[in-house]
Amino acid sequence: MAETPPEHDDSDPWLPEVQPDSYGISAELVRKVAKALAAGKERKVHRLVIDLHEADLADLLEHLDRDDRPRLIEFLGNDFDLEVLTHLDSSLREELIEAMEPRQLADSLSDMDSDDAVDIFEDLDEDAQREVLEALPRADRLVLEESLSFPEDSAGRIMQRELLAVPSSWTVGQTIDYMRAAKDLPDDFYDLYIVDPKHQPIGFVPLSRAMRTKRPVPLTDIMTDDMKVVPIEMDQEEVAYLFRQYGLVSAPVVDPGGRLVGVVTVDDVVHIIDEEAEEDLLKLAGVKETDLYSAVLDTTRSRFSWLLINLFTAVAASIVIAVFEETIERVVALAVLMPIVASMGGNAGTQTLTVAVRALAMRDLSAGNAWRFVGKEVLVGLANGLMFAVLAGALAWLWFDAPMIGVIIGAAMVINLVVAALSGALVPLGLEKLGVDPAVASSVLLTTVTDVIGFFAFLGLATVFLL
Amino acid sequence: MAETPPEHDDSDPWLPEVQPDSYGISAELVRKVAKALAAGKERKVHRLVIDLHEADLADLLEHLDRDDRPRLIEFLGNDFDLEVLTHLDSSLREELIEAMEPRQLADSLSDMDSDDAVDIFEDLDEDAQREVLEALPRADRLVLEESLSFPEDSAGRIMQRELLAVPSSWTVGQTIDYMRAAKDLPDDFYDLYIVDPKHQPIGFVPLSRAMRTKRPVPLTDIMTDDMKVVPIEMDQEEVAYLFRQYGLVSAPVVDPGGRLVGVVTVDDVVHIIDEEAEEDLLKLAGVKETDLYSAVLDTTRSRFSWLLINLFTAVAASIVIAVFEETIERVVALAVLMPIVASMGGNAGTQTLTVAVRALAMRDLSAGNAWRFVGKEVLVGLANGLMFAVLAGALAWLWFDAPMIGVIIGAAMVINLVVAALSGALVPLGLEKLGVDPAVASSVLLTTVTDVIGFFAFLGLATVFLL
Repeated sequence: MAETPPEHDDSDPWLPEVQPDSYGISAELVRKVAKALAAGKERKVHRLVIDLHEADLADLLEHLDRDDRPRLIEFLGNDFDLEVLTHLDSSLREELIEAMEPRQLADSLSDMDSDDAVDIFEDLDEDAQREVLEALPRADRLVLEESLSFPEDSAGRIMQRELLAVPSSWTVGQTIDYMRAAKDLPDDFYDLYIVDPKHQPIGFVPLSRAMRTKRPVPLTDIMTDDMKVVPIEMDQEEVAYLFRQYGLVSAPVVDPGGRLVGVVTVDDVVHIIDEEAEEDLLKLAGVKETDLYSAVLDTTRSRFSWLLINLFTAVAASIVIAVFEETIERVVALAVLMPIVASMGGNAGTQTLTVAVRALAMRDLSAGNAWRFVGKEVLVGLANGLMFAVLAGALAWLWFDAPMIGVIIGAAMVINLVVAALSGALVPLGLEKLGVDPAVASSVLLTTVTDVIGFFAFLGLATVFLL
Repeated sequence: MAETPPEHDDSDPWLPEVQPDSYGISAELVRKVAKALAAGKERKVHRLVIDLHEADLADLLEHLDRDDRPRLIEFLGNDFDLEVLTHLDSSLREELIEAMEPRQLADSLSDMDSDDAVDIFEDLDEDAQREVLEALPRADRLVLEESLSFPEDSAGRIMQRELLAVPSSWTVGQTIDYMRAAKDLPDDFYDLYIVDPKHQPIGFVPLSRAMRTKRPVPLTDIMTDDMKVVPIEMDQEEVAYLFRQYGLVSAPVVDPGGRLVGVVTVDDVVHIIDEEAEEDLLKLAGVKETDLYSAVLDTTRSRFSWLLINLFTAVAASIVIAVFEETIERVVALAVLMPIVASMGGNAGTQTLTVAVRALAMRDLSAGNAWRFVGKEVLVGLANGLMFAVLAGALAWLWFDAPMIGVIIGAAMVINLVVAALSGALVPLGLEKLGVDPAVASSVLLTTVTDVIGFFAFLGLATVFLL
């Protein structure tokens, strides 16, 4: 926390304030650092940021202008701890790493816990990876190469190799003595693992339990053997589920032979949970990943493809309208009212869809209760469809003084809201079944359906009953 | 894990499968339990579920039909551990608790850690709360009443009162001896806190560090004094930020006098992170909270209000169209094309909006970089606007063989995509500034803007240049 009262209030009244007593960095600090960087005041910059936690320094870098970022790192020199990189948004991280010497990177990676080192290393491009590997000591190189042999987003990538495993014959006292003597223990850990002679984990003891047990007690007397073991190939999403479901702080990782090779800790899992939640949210809107720090060109390109798909679906809806061109020409009120039916369908369907996507991600929805969900959603769609049929029908009747238009919009509303509920539920369930991430394509498929059905039902009924 | 091969394959090929080797409950188990419940086979039910983890038993309850749930609990009798309730979705929890005896509830609450007890108690209705309080032992009642005096969603509600605090004069050895003798320590904990004579925390020692230090070393020699302290009134969202930002597993909670009164642990924070992510996702779609387990009527009612607001905004768009009724009557192609402009604006704006809402929630967006974000989004909107102007323009030209319509739709597209970017960025920033949750109202405000501007720009330009 580097918090000082503002010299003068130049904050923008329109933008969110940062509470001065909150943790994290303040807008004031960002401004001060930017000013000092611009003025080339190296010592002032140093004084402002030197006490910041790495995560806060990463935030500061993210909030600075593109050109100020390398300058800040340059000003900090050897005081810049590369662990800051693990807290950075990945697009920024790449940008900053590219500016660094492979030798310097290699030195820092050697000092880190293995999971942090992998985290940074896997973001490098191939050339940089080769150069860094060559500069690394042999032992570190082998560890890194092995970690990278596991699939991306698997437990093998996020685990930490440093852990405390002890033989099943030990007592609490022996363990404590070993811990006092050992040099290569991880910085922080929460459980100790009991392994058999094949190095397969047979149980664990939370440190708090070990510490309150008398020295002569054998570890096997106090260990928990109902252990949630993570296979090294397990997807990180599955790992997150495990931690969330069973309230774990750490879990042992085993290789295909069942041998204990690493440990996943809850701080990594919190990041995964954040990432997965973010992905679902962004994908539903057609954004691939946080592009807050990407350049304009990259952002434009990555969003273009989604908008292009949407152009096709919008054209599909237009084709439906074109079929009824003649009807619209004769009753132009239909052109005025038709977006209402489509829009209500889209919104009602999105409600169902979002509940389904989230429930699938949280595993609250599965084969066991899927049909019950679909049935319920259709009933909700029907109920709201009937209510909005009355509302929209009355409105249309009064507006255009034509009761028949009211009846037609009402009927179209019921049809579209039921179809919306049905597709809002079935589209994500179907995509999940096909092995496609339901968050990615659901919303575009859904709105295509609700637009097409909305326009078709409304204009079709009008053609039959009005002309 | 209760996993057995299916007797015959009656799984629905259309629905997602549950991998047999994954953790959690299987669809197969749900079916078996439901069948045994229906057949009244109490002992079979017992055998199927007795080894389940509480979190899995909660999932099983969620997946069963409404009527089967109380029956399962009844069948389990005294083997039903009330901690299962803490893992249940809140709407289900209320339903099940209502069916229980206050006396039975009170007994279970007494046995729980204080945070779990509060979690369950705060969901009871007032009558039930009073009855349970009367049935509780005096000490437990006081603790519960005090916890409830803190604001909902504050650190005071989620903290656990059981913790390990030791005086600053102690050595590692004294601490270990104390731990071995003490009876009222929490089940699991990760840090021990050093307090001064006023019981204010002055530092902490991770258990792993304490365990590897020799007995005569004073705790103050190994303690970390850069502690992230949580004021008891701190909002849980802020607490989650703290844990995420600094990778914490536990944090001390202090009262306004700075005295150590509790501890928040990471397992509670994981739930909060999930909840907050879920809220943002659902609110953007106009769903108040997970309604997966709510009755049809409750769901219909809670979604109705959002759809009603959407009806008003759809009518607003219709009014804009009505202004140009005469233009549409003369060039009916406009009615065919107009949804394209509105829909592209809505989608592009939603991309910006979603990035903004997420970045605000994660505190990546604040006064320090807000204007940079707005500027970038407008540029992205302009760039994509120009590209889709060409695409949609060419399409319209070819379709209706009228170059002027192509020019008009292109111009409207640029205008609407820039406006969409601007509102997609400013609406959530503005709402945040006003103290309104940006996730709640953003998307409805945004699509109103993009619909109105989309129709107005397209039809307005057509009126000026075509007629």
